[in-house]
Amino acid sequence: MSSRIILLAHGSSDKRWCETFENLASPTLAAVADSRIAYMELAEPSLDQVVAEGAQAGIESFTVVPLFLAAGRHLRKDVPAMIASMEQQHQVRIELAPPIGENPQLGLAIKDVVMQQLTSGG
Amino acid sequence: MSSRIILLAHGSSDKRWCETFENLASPTLAAVADSRIAYMELAEPSLDQVVAEGAQAGIESFTVVPLFLAAGRHLRKDVPAMIASMEQQHQVRIELAPPIGENPQLGLAIKDVVMQQLTSGG
Repeated sequence: MSSRIILLAHGSSDKRWCETFENLASPTLAAVADSRIAYMELAEPSLDQVVAEGAQAGIESFTVVPLFLAAGRHLRKDVPAMIASMEQQHQVRIELAPPIGENPQLGLAIKDVVMQQLTSGG
Repeated sequence: MSSRIILLAHGSSDKRWCETFENLASPTLAAVADSRIAYMELAEPSLDQVVAEGAQAGIESFTVVPLFLAAGRHLRKDVPAMIASMEQQHQVRIELAPPIGENPQLGLAIKDVVMQQLTSGG
């Protein structure tokens, strides 16, 4: 059985922050069946809510893809601890993928953004 | 005269964090003449160092492109205040571009990363 993809954003009480991540997630959510976005803290749905909902629907395996450019304390300590606790509580497997910023595709996209800005005279 | 591009990353005392951002910046630094990476805090070169170095070389205008997925307190308050102070101190103009994550290109790159991960069975 394939893993349910969960895009994990940091979260914030600022709605504009969450809107930016919802826009960032949108092409993936449209392309990958049954994928979800979740927040680490300060916004909903939380990772725990999304895992719990999936577990109730019979999903046994999840892949968490962090919408973070790099791994800091959150991804090295906090999120692995959250995930270990959720695996036990919901009796599921949760794989933590590398942060998106570790994929060379992101560096190429950043170059495209800067080139766009230069040619638009911005 | 065109603006010198400065890619601004958050910074960290963790070298792995900075290495990830140097990798992310690398295609842009290779493609855009005279562009630089700088850190907001906790790593070098600092934004102030990069602006000071440019000003000494006769650059009058800079465009700071934040390597952030979304704008939080740092980009709404701290960085604009830093920039206002540097403009005065170094007698230059510094434009703050939107964070890269507000460009739709990034959402497409994220989709590509997730699709890669799915097809590689990861």
